[in-house]
Amino acid sequence: MSSPSLFDRATDHMIALQESILAAVEELEGGATFRRDDWEREELEESDNPAAPILRGWGRTRVIENGRFFERGGVNLSVVEGRFGSVAPTHMPGDGHHFRAVGVSLVLHPHNPFAPTVHMNYRRMERGSTGWFGGGADLTPNYLFEEDARHFHTTLKTVCDAHPEVANHTAMKEECDRYFTIPHRGEMRGVGGIFFDHMMTRPEESFAFLRDASQAFIPAYLPIARRRDNTPFEPHHRQWQLLRRGRYVEFNLVNDRGTQFGLRTGGRIESILMSMPANASWAYDHHPAPGSDEARMVAALQPRDWTI
Amino acid sequence: MSSPSLFDRATDHMIALQESILAAVEELEGGATFRRDDWEREELEESDNPAAPILRGWGRTRVIENGRFFERGGVNLSVVEGRFGSVAPTHMPGDGHHFRAVGVSLVLHPHNPFAPTVHMNYRRMERGSTGWFGGGADLTPNYLFEEDARHFHTTLKTVCDAHPEVANHTAMKEECDRYFTIPHRGEMRGVGGIFFDHMMTRPEESFAFLRDASQAFIPAYLPIARRRDNTPFEPHHRQWQLLRRGRYVEFNLVNDRGTQFGLRTGGRIESILMSMPANASWAYDHHPAPGSDEARMVAALQPRDWTI
Repeated sequence: MSSPSLFDRATDHMIALQESILAAVEELEGGATFRRDDWEREELEESDNPAAPILRGWGRTRVIENGRFFERGGVNLSVVEGRFGSVAPTHMPGDGHHFRAVGVSLVLHPHNPFAPTVHMNYRRMERGSTGWFGGGADLTPNYLFEEDARHFHTTLKTVCDAHPEVANHTAMKEECDRYFTIPHRGEMRGVGGIFFDHMMTRPEESFAFLRDASQAFIPAYLPIARRRDNTPFEPHHRQWQLLRRGRYVEFNLVNDRGTQFGLRTGGRIESILMSMPANASWAYDHHPAPGSDEARMVAALQPRDWTI
Repeated sequence: MSSPSLFDRATDHMIALQESILAAVEELEGGATFRRDDWEREELEESDNPAAPILRGWGRTRVIENGRFFERGGVNLSVVEGRFGSVAPTHMPGDGHHFRAVGVSLVLHPHNPFAPTVHMNYRRMERGSTGWFGGGADLTPNYLFEEDARHFHTTLKTVCDAHPEVANHTAMKEECDRYFTIPHRGEMRGVGGIFFDHMMTRPEESFAFLRDASQAFIPAYLPIARRRDNTPFEPHHRQWQLLRRGRYVEFNLVNDRGTQFGLRTGGRIESILMSMPANASWAYDHHPAPGSDEARMVAALQPRDWTI
C-alpha cells in the first residue's frame, strides 16, 4: 500500500479543520446554528466561455444567518478538480490544463458593531505535477481596539516564527496588507493579518505550517469575539458598521481575485457569496467627525506593525 | 465667429437636461431635496497606473438621500477631458490619447418596494477627431407591474421610431438586455430599456435623437413613480427589495463596465458610487416561494418584448 498523497492528507486536514472551527463557533453561539448544505457536482459540459474550467467536486457549505453572535457568515469546505478551457491562466504555477484544489474558506460577520468581521482561507492546489499551499487570515473591525489587533497579529506571528524554514511573518503580513487594500478608497479593508501563496518548496514543512496556521484561527479570533460579546451599542454604532460593510462588499466584488475568479469561472455562487454581509449601506461622501472613534478606525486602515 | 462644436452643444444640452430632471424629481418629492455638490478638478499628476488617464474637468453632482419618495440616488453632470496613459483602450473608436466626455448619469432608488429603481446615462465622447453618442435607460422593479414595464418601453420605442435614420428600437432594446444581465445569476438586473454606444454616423440626426431620448426620461419614469407612490407595503416587501438591491450592487460592482472603468482609472469615487443603494442585503440560497409575487418578478428578469 502506498502512503497517501499530500493532496489526500491536506483533504483530511481540511475536513477536520472545518469541524473543529464549527464546534468552536457553535460553542460561542451557545448551540448548533449552522445550516448544513452538502453538495456534489458532476462534470459540467464544456462551457462556451474559454476562461471557464470544467469542474467537478464536492463540498460542505456551512452557513450561519441571524445567529446569537454572528449576523451572517460561512465556514465552507470544497474539494474540486477541473480542466482549464483554452484560456489557461498564465500566472499560475505548474503546467497543463488539469488542476485540483481543496480548501476551507471562512467569513464571519458579528451582529455587534464592536466585534470584528474575520476572514480565513487555506488551500492546497495542484496543477499538473506541481502542488502548493496558500491562504491566510485577516481581521476587519469597525471600531479599533488595539488589543484585539495586537492579539490577532501576535497569534499569527507565533505560528510563523515556529516554522522559520517556510514562513516569514514580515513578508506574509506585508503581502496581506497589499492584497486587502481597496485601491479606489486608498485604505485597507481592515487591520490585516497574513497572506501567502505558491508555497511549494519543502512540502512537508509547508504542510506542517499550514496545519498550525489554519488551526490558529480559533485562538486568534475567538478570544476577541468573547471580549466584545454583549458590549452595549447604539443605533449610530450599527449605522457605522453598515457603512463599513459597504466597503467590505466593495472590496470583495471589485477587488478580490478569488471572488472574481469564482464568479467568472462558474463556481458555486451561493458558496462564494457567503462572504457578503447580511446588510450593507452606502452614504454620499461620508466622513467621520474628526477625533471620533470612527475617524480613529479609518486612520488605522493603513499598514502598521501590530506585533510591537 | 465659428458655430459651436457638437461637443459644446451637447454640453449645453446636458446642463439643461440635468436641470429639467432635477425639477421634475423635486416636484415629485414635494420640495428641493437634492444636495448640490459642484466640483472641479485640475489636471492630475501622471499616475503610475498605466491604464489610468490623466483627467481634468468639472461636474455638478446632485445627490438625494432619505427624500420623501427616493431613498437614495443621484443625477450627475460631468464634463471631463484627459489623456490615456501608455495603455490606451483598444476597444474604443478614434485614435490618439486625448479624449473628452460630457454626460448626465442618473440612478434613483425609491423607498417604496413597489416603485422601481431607474437608471439613465447619456453622453457625448470624443477621442482624437472621432466623436460619438452613447447611453440608454433601464428599469429595475422589485415587483412586476406589467403596465409599468410596458409604459417605460413604449415611451422609449416612440422616441426611437421618430428617428429611424439613426435609432433602431429592437437593436437598442436587445443591446440593453445583453448589457444589463448578471451572468453569475443568469438573470437580468431588471426589465431592461434601451442602450446604445458608438453612434457616430449622421451626427446631427444622432444628436437630435439623443436630445429626445434623454428628455424622454421624465415621461418614461415619472408616471410610474406617481402610480406607485403611497402604495402600502409590509416588512416582507421591504426585505425582498433589500435582497434585490443586493443584486443591483452585484451587477454594478462586478459587471458594470462604467463603474469598473471609473474605479480603476481614478474617477471621482463618490460620484461613481452614487449608484449604490442606501441599503442592500444578502441571504444564503434565497428562493421566493413558487407562485409568489417575488417568484413572478424573478421569472420576468429575462429578455421579453414589452411593447406588444
